[in-house]
Amino acid sequence: MKRIAFLLVAVAAVAGFVADSAPASGHADEEAAPIFGIKIPPGYRDWKLVSVAHEAGDNNDIRAILGNDTAIEAYREGKLPFPDGTIIARLAWSYVASEENNKVFGRAQSFVAGDATNVQFMVKDSKKYAVTGGWGFAQFKDGKPDATAALETCFPCHEPAKARDFVFTHYAP
Amino acid sequence: MKRIAFLLVAVAAVAGFVADSAPASGHADEEAAPIFGIKIPPGYRDWKLVSVAHEAGDNNDIRAILGNDTAIEAYREGKLPFPDGTIIARLAWSYVASEENNKVFGRAQSFVAGDATNVQFMVKDSKKYAVTGGWGFAQFKDGKPDATAALETCFPCHEPAKARDFVFTHYAP
Repeated sequence: MKRIAFLLVAVAAVAGFVADSAPASGHADEEAAPIFGIKIPPGYRDWKLVSVAHEAGDNNDIRAILGNDTAIEAYREGKLPFPDGTIIARLAWSYVASEENNKVFGRAQSFVAGDATNVQFMVKDSKKYAVTGGWGFAQFKDGKPDATAALETCFPCHEPAKARDFVFTHYAP
Repeated sequence: MKRIAFLLVAVAAVAGFVADSAPASGHADEEAAPIFGIKIPPGYRDWKLVSVAHEAGDNNDIRAILGNDTAIEAYREGKLPFPDGTIIARLAWSYVASEENNKVFGRAQSFVAGDATNVQFMVKDSKKYAVTGGWGFAQFKDGKPDATAALETCFPCHEPAKARDFVFTHYAP
């Protein structure tokens, strides 16, 4: 916990405002996620596919990881660290059994994407986000950014993937 | 089975050659799938995402459904039937538990894409493929088309989705 607390203080210092308070500019900006100040990148739903995954447990979602052109190029060329400008998007939907598909298969085996749960972004800016491995993190639900608390665990959780520039998802061939 | 047999004969007639024999042109074409004569569409891995799914059972895969621009536009506008020129790609990978991710979550909950299994395409051409609802079907493994037998069940399986122009996958928001 000490480590997380340290990181938060450091991040707040870099971002120029104290976590949980209003931005230093004094202008409320409901579209930008706290701490890292990230907005939803326009057109991200059109980005190319990196890979897919299913998280069981509390998440119980099925997800797609998309990347902007800088991300996809780096993935395909095996370029590490990811260059500044990289944005990786993680879209998730509730994990739903498809009765329609199961009828065709003749047994319960098909799980599909239900309602959207939330969208996360990792934005690479090695200077702006130097304290958190060069990455800014954001999470949005129904277009609204999640509160600071939801972002506090992002970087500590991603630290085990340091050898791959803190990115878990591998490119699916 | 009678229905499937009828369909196959009809499809073979439309395609201009008898199933399991060489194309009428006499030119072997290892890149084109049989019956419907479909080749792998260039650049399909760059197409936009329609949705994701997990098939358990014999497939035991995790998959992404992508669409060319015509497909995505039709999906987003709720346009049915899909217009000629629509191509829907289904990419699938083996369904693999991620030990790396599970370590971070502290329990076995994470499943990711492993090796590619095969790629399927649905190509809309209402005249060319009139007998099979306007759709041609193809499946490729490691870039090689699957044999006729693998394609014989495509359309019969898709028939229950007739109300949605024989397409199972819904667009993920």
